[in-house]
Amino acid sequence: MDLLIKNGTIVTSSETYSADLAVKDGKIVAIGTLLPETATTVIDAKGKLVLPGAIDVHTHLAMPFGGTVSADGYFSGTRAAACGGVTTVFDYPVQRKGTGIMGLINDKKKICEAEACIDYAFHCCITDIEEGKIIEEMATAVEEGITSFKCFFVYKKEGMMVDDGTFAKLLARAKEIGAMINLHAENPDLIDLNVAKFVAEGKLSPWYHYLSRPEYVEAEADKRGIHWAKHLEAPLYIVHMADKEGLEAAIDAKREGHDIYVETCPQYLEFTSEVYKREDGRNFVCSPPMKGQESQDALWKAIQNGQIDTVATDHCPFQSYEKDWGKDDFTKIPNGCAGVENLYPYMLAAANDGKISFSRAVELCSTNPAKIFGCTSKGSLTVGKDADIVIYDPEKTLTISVDNMHSDYDHTIWEGKSLNGYPVMTFSRGKLVYKDGEFVGEAGWGQFVKRASRND
Amino acid sequence: MDLLIKNGTIVTSSETYSADLAVKDGKIVAIGTLLPETATTVIDAKGKLVLPGAIDVHTHLAMPFGGTVSADGYFSGTRAAACGGVTTVFDYPVQRKGTGIMGLINDKKKICEAEACIDYAFHCCITDIEEGKIIEEMATAVEEGITSFKCFFVYKKEGMMVDDGTFAKLLARAKEIGAMINLHAENPDLIDLNVAKFVAEGKLSPWYHYLSRPEYVEAEADKRGIHWAKHLEAPLYIVHMADKEGLEAAIDAKREGHDIYVETCPQYLEFTSEVYKREDGRNFVCSPPMKGQESQDALWKAIQNGQIDTVATDHCPFQSYEKDWGKDDFTKIPNGCAGVENLYPYMLAAANDGKISFSRAVELCSTNPAKIFGCTSKGSLTVGKDADIVIYDPEKTLTISVDNMHSDYDHTIWEGKSLNGYPVMTFSRGKLVYKDGEFVGEAGWGQFVKRASRND
Amino acid sequence: MDLLIKNGTIVTSSETYSADLAVKDGKIVAIGTLLPETATTVIDAKGKLVLPGAIDVHTHLAMPFGGTVSADGYFSGTRAAACGGVTTVFDYPVQRKGTGIMGLINDKKKICEAEACIDYAFHCCITDIEEGKIIEEMATAVEEGITSFKCFFVYKKEGMMVDDGTFAKLLARAKEIGAMINLHAENPDLIDLNVAKFVAEGKLSPWYHYLSRPEYVEAEADKRGIHWAKHLEAPLYIVHMADKEGLEAAIDAKREGHDIYVETCPQYLEFTSEVYKREDGRNFVCSPPMKGQESQDALWKAIQNGQIDTVATDHCPFQSYEKDWGKDDFTKIPNGCAGVENLYPYMLAAANDGKISFSRAVELCSTNPAKIFGCTSKGSLTVGKDADIVIYDPEKTLTISVDNMHSDYDHTIWEGKSLNGYPVMTFSRGKLVYKDGEFVGEAGWGQFVKRASRND
Amino acid sequence: MDLLIKNGTIVTSSETYSADLAVKDGKIVAIGTLLPETATTVIDAKGKLVLPGAIDVHTHLAMPFGGTVSADGYFSGTRAAACGGVTTVFDYPVQRKGTGIMGLINDKKKICEAEACIDYAFHCCITDIEEGKIIEEMATAVEEGITSFKCFFVYKKEGMMVDDGTFAKLLARAKEIGAMINLHAENPDLIDLNVAKFVAEGKLSPWYHYLSRPEYVEAEADKRGIHWAKHLEAPLYIVHMADKEGLEAAIDAKREGHDIYVETCPQYLEFTSEVYKREDGRNFVCSPPMKGQESQDALWKAIQNGQIDTVATDHCPFQSYEKDWGKDDFTKIPNGCAGVENLYPYMLAAANDGKISFSRAVELCSTNPAKIFGCTSKGSLTVGKDADIVIYDPEKTLTISVDNMHSDYDHTIWEGKSLNGYPVMTFSRGKLVYKDGEFVGEAGWGQFVKRASRND
Repeated sequence: MDLLIKNGTIVTSSETYSADLAVKDGKIVAIGTLLPETATTVIDAKGKLVLPGAIDVHTHLAMPFGGTVSADGYFSGTRAAACGGVTTVFDYPVQRKGTGIMGLINDKKKICEAEACIDYAFHCCITDIEEGKIIEEMATAVEEGITSFKCFFVYKKEGMMVDDGTFAKLLARAKEIGAMINLHAENPDLIDLNVAKFVAEGKLSPWYHYLSRPEYVEAEADKRGIHWAKHLEAPLYIVHMADKEGLEAAIDAKREGHDIYVETCPQYLEFTSEVYKREDGRNFVCSPPMKGQESQDALWKAIQNGQIDTVATDHCPFQSYEKDWGKDDFTKIPNGCAGVENLYPYMLAAANDGKISFSRAVELCSTNPAKIFGCTSKGSLTVGKDADIVIYDPEKTLTISVDNMHSDYDHTIWEGKSLNGYPVMTFSRGKLVYKDGEFVGEAGWGQFVKRASRND
Repeated sequence: MDLLIKNGTIVTSSETYSADLAVKDGKIVAIGTLLPETATTVIDAKGKLVLPGAIDVHTHLAMPFGGTVSADGYFSGTRAAACGGVTTVFDYPVQRKGTGIMGLINDKKKICEAEACIDYAFHCCITDIEEGKIIEEMATAVEEGITSFKCFFVYKKEGMMVDDGTFAKLLARAKEIGAMINLHAENPDLIDLNVAKFVAEGKLSPWYHYLSRPEYVEAEADKRGIHWAKHLEAPLYIVHMADKEGLEAAIDAKREGHDIYVETCPQYLEFTSEVYKREDGRNFVCSPPMKGQESQDALWKAIQNGQIDTVATDHCPFQSYEKDWGKDDFTKIPNGCAGVENLYPYMLAAANDGKISFSRAVELCSTNPAKIFGCTSKGSLTVGKDADIVIYDPEKTLTISVDNMHSDYDHTIWEGKSLNGYPVMTFSRGKLVYKDGEFVGEAGWGQFVKRASRND
Repeated sequence: MDLLIKNGTIVTSSETYSADLAVKDGKIVAIGTLLPETATTVIDAKGKLVLPGAIDVHTHLAMPFGGTVSADGYFSGTRAAACGGVTTVFDYPVQRKGTGIMGLINDKKKICEAEACIDYAFHCCITDIEEGKIIEEMATAVEEGITSFKCFFVYKKEGMMVDDGTFAKLLARAKEIGAMINLHAENPDLIDLNVAKFVAEGKLSPWYHYLSRPEYVEAEADKRGIHWAKHLEAPLYIVHMADKEGLEAAIDAKREGHDIYVETCPQYLEFTSEVYKREDGRNFVCSPPMKGQESQDALWKAIQNGQIDTVATDHCPFQSYEKDWGKDDFTKIPNGCAGVENLYPYMLAAANDGKISFSRAVELCSTNPAKIFGCTSKGSLTVGKDADIVIYDPEKTLTISVDNMHSDYDHTIWEGKSLNGYPVMTFSRGKLVYKDGEFVGEAGWGQFVKRASRND
Repeated sequence: MDLLIKNGTIVTSSETYSADLAVKDGKIVAIGTLLPETATTVIDAKGKLVLPGAIDVHTHLAMPFGGTVSADGYFSGTRAAACGGVTTVFDYPVQRKGTGIMGLINDKKKICEAEACIDYAFHCCITDIEEGKIIEEMATAVEEGITSFKCFFVYKKEGMMVDDGTFAKLLARAKEIGAMINLHAENPDLIDLNVAKFVAEGKLSPWYHYLSRPEYVEAEADKRGIHWAKHLEAPLYIVHMADKEGLEAAIDAKREGHDIYVETCPQYLEFTSEVYKREDGRNFVCSPPMKGQESQDALWKAIQNGQIDTVATDHCPFQSYEKDWGKDDFTKIPNGCAGVENLYPYMLAAANDGKISFSRAVELCSTNPAKIFGCTSKGSLTVGKDADIVIYDPEKTLTISVDNMHSDYDHTIWEGKSLNGYPVMTFSRGKLVYKDGEFVGEAGWGQFVKRASRND
């Protein structure tokens, strides 16, 4: 054995129990109470929780957007991830008119081979089906382990929106080949209408970012996406759900047995639209924006009732000078916020504070992401799975600051947030990559996660 | 007094009672049991029902569509209307890119002044807001008594669709000026997707007209329209509702107190999508198409429960040779069917057969249309209203045939339908225009109905 | 003609229009604009509304209850009614173990023949079916014009409750013979449980009257009653609905097309449970008690959306000294409040203040009660109906006080309430019974209203 | 190590994976891929599934009912259980007027100590709270590991029903002390009404057993129970749910986050009310009866959607001669059917046939029962839990017959049912009790399961 973690409390999505855990060749090989102590490394986890590493299924690394590129590249982004207990990240390369899927993916894989500190997978955003060629190529992508594709109902003027017919075609194709469609649901026409109105009226503060895409503008798109998925009997995964009405529609569809999955993000659980009234409101600008208290309450209730499936980050930070472009005009602010390092500590602190159980935090951040997206060797502390493990100290506290984070950005919306409990070690396939506030991994360690199709 | 109708049974939307009714100068001046018999004309309506004339709020007369023009012009269309107990028709002129509202309306008014046999009003279809000029002009239209405007969610390729932003702008504007938006709700992208697929597969029979725009394709658009109206707190009138899921959404919104109005048509109450399997299926091609039995049952249930507001016809007949263009290709069939002469007899026969009450038939075909669309002098047998009156013989039966109808078309989907009970006289502002199967009116009698705004 | 009301504005449940109205032999004989002015009495109603008299379908006159008898007998109760624009009252005689229906009714009719100033009808409360004899006798009652029967789900210890089996039997029987079951819906076991608990804890103020029968205790019984009615496909009328959850269940059932009718009372529209914290809280004690703000808001919304059918009073006042019995113990307070004189002025003031339309007020207080309970000659200003007419001055204001009311009670929960608009005349079958604050009618004028069965 | 199960496929409620499993002193001590083969007993489970033993939370052993005693006592009942892969049974002793809880339980424990072949736990039915003494004693019961109590809304004439007030008191008390109320939900008054009617009409075949307690009679009680639990914010477990409407109400309450748990039984999943038309219909008589196809479909859908929590048997068989008492009169048939040996094979065959996953079968029959009812050492193949293990051969088929079952009854409703896949071994705390069709355990091996309170 290479590694023995002793005396810890193991947490899975369904159970919490005391046992030792042994690792060999990057895999969990045994869990038990009488395991031999013959491992190369023995760690005493007494008083600690032993958790599966988190899987952040929504990040944008080195993402060109809003006239610049998101502040975390594949090295710094995965470094930050590791330090937050994330052992797999999903990136979202964007296919554009004139290009195919696999060329894009292979370019990204090449970069990640050199830079990634932890394992990585790719969804692929589809923005133009190239007269059907993309529809064909999706099957190849699935064979190569890219089993999910994102559509935008928004970004019409940016040429990224798919219309309802294309969306329906993609839903049907995804179902056929065992893949999943992810959806960014906001209504572009209403946003454009509102933005034009506010610009004409000289209303340019970040508060109007929110007012140009309020609750009902997101809800319409949620409901439309769900409608098509229901009637085409295809699975659908809605990313970054942030409003109550759309959430309720998703819960109703789940109740009827439809394959609708819902993701939300820590920023929607922590902040409301009130942040856009702050002096530094521009730093919180992302799409969809934070919503009102009623939506936040609904999200937490759904977290507690088992009606939200995953929490992921939509990690897409920009530097202060970039955010400042929109100091006097919200339309010029690059959209996106940091989060990959905050996801697991935030959700585990919610558990530590009694808001949810630790099992539920594990389910939302690790087990469900693995199951939904076909990461068959990830997502649980089970014999045979990859030894992606976090050791968590429920007694340690940390106040988040840009100074103790491990990204390349120069500010964070999480500045000043205190958390009860914090990860003290992260293992990626048995290798220690984070310890006590320090990154101890290396670029290039991360491997591509080839995912299973839903038809397997 | 000019006219006294004696011994009849007066039916209003809320009551049925025996009384005489007196008319002077085209108005109802008295209702009573002891009225003096001094009128120029005295009619004995013993054993008959005395009803307000129907208001068909949805017709397309002389309508350019599908490469031709609908078969009934303003003379023949209003003649047929009169013979079916309709005393007011609403026409739907279509504003197109490059043109305004009032020019179009005034042209139509001029034609109607010469041709119309009964009173007429206009909605106006808006297909291009001309960079806002139409938004401005709407106020003028309302002042001129054009207080409702139709939007198409469909006919995208034909350049008639409004996007959601424009729709929202029109809803808000209509609310502001006391007008109403009417909506043709089907989803164009899904229709185009399905049509392209069926054409590619050589599936060209009328059955594929239905399959290219099935229940859920209409329902999505219904739900989207309702969503915007709810959140913008604006009134919305959905024309020719034909599917259960959209209907349920409308009923839910009404239940919550929103100003959502629902119109259906006799063809959806009588026929199902099975007609498209018939040899002459092309004659039944209209948009939206007839739907399945479940939708028809839901429509009748809503008729009975008071959840549908109006029944109108979407009268838009084409000649056989025109329908034949699509004998081997459903995409070439001009969309539309006849109905203006069948509306009231059909709904009154439903009452006579016990399916609904006569009061409910009056409410659906006359009282509600008048109230919803601001025809303040129409819609009820009440002192002071226009003497638009139908005398109905519940004992007379008629089997509909193109030979006993009064339109210019050469066939009808209603051929062979037997009705228990039938109108025997129609009065337009006190003037007899129809009697015992014969048209006895004249072109040019009809007057423009200047409608009240909702803010009045 | 005996009476001509000129120049008024006639209001029906569906319309408002200017016309004169003529009366002969107690009936409305003509409505028109050119009526001859040959009446014995001519009244100029310029600037006034001419309304059908209200029908208060829920009163308890000379009702033995709580160890005493309600403060208004048949004379003073109907006098007060007339002065509030009510032209028909329904009384609720209570059948008890050992007695039949018709003996009880006939005794009451005899008293009313001598005392009633306006017309009267009877529901009959059934508390014991006498091993089936009452089931038989119900048919006789219907023949005699008693076409509705009330059941209590409450008052178990008082021997007045019917169990679910008996209730189901009564529902089925009522349906068979064209009658209607009315239901007082509260759950007796929970009330008894709560009362016992509060008494044991020495919590005896009126606030604990409310807490012993809060929202959910009423809602359970509402839902249970509706459940049986739905599944037995029988009509059901729920009296004095006061809570949101039960109301929502009723609205849901209506939406599905079930024959569920809902009555509420002015006290639930005006007061909330907060009144029980007042010094004089005991005066507001009635069952069900006033509920919280959320329920009141729901009741108003349903009033506005057309989902409540009637407003009636549950008029059952007690004198101050009787209410005082419970000064230190809420269980000793006779349950009931005054209202018959306040009903119509209160609802019409709501219309005058713009909360609802005058037509809706007429519908709730007159037209619907007449239709639902088979008063075929009442409920509307229509030719042929009884001349039960109220002339209402929208400019007159009145502040309610026990001093300007016309009951025999010595206090009122409505003390100090100011109303915009007030009735200035009431006619009962053409006879003036109230004028400008004074009762001008006479005992014995009132007649029994023999009601039609639902099968007629 | 005492036992090593090698090469099997381990199934938990959330995962399926290959690993060996080691047992020592009746506990699972290790799960892994490299465990040393030093155990006393080594079993090769290649090609087999290794499952946690089922927990049948609803049995009536040696139960006095319907004038006799149920056919399986504690020995034969637990022997049958073991042979069907059940390793823990819950019995339902019934407290009656004049007796307490713990005396009853202790008597039962004494019998079980001598007779039980597998582990056992007790719910306790409460039928009379003995003026509050039972309310007090519940706390003692919880301390002794009896943490759930059943109430009957039915059996009013038999003196077993609790009224709503008592039910509310028990709900509140249970919540306070960390216990759970179980509910048998049918409405007694409607049953009595219907039975009396059918008896009077001479309708006495088993079909009238069903018609006297049809869907809506169960649904009312389900909805009432849920109503009280929701508003008192207390957990509620509804036993043997058999109808769609009640199930939907429970799902709605779960959706809102209420602690409502739903149990159904294999007989409701396999049979419909049609069985009561069979010659041997009396053998299927149980309460609640099987319902129509629509309810069965709803139950399966809820099984699949995760909306039913447990499947248990309501095992309560009677001998043929006892069932025959009601050959000519359904009211004389002892109510109850066999099932304890069929539960797990039936649900696992459903998984083997692809209707649900094996994980879902494990969750319904083992993991959820353990979690809901506080069996902390049961319900999962996890290190530290009791070695209650079933080895299941997915290739073995068995046709159920009274001859290959291990109860004392002389017939079974499951006769002739073929199952794909069947248990081949059952271990109770590491001891083999069943192998290849033969019982190999012993009376007295079973131990009392002291359950945890919900407040622990």
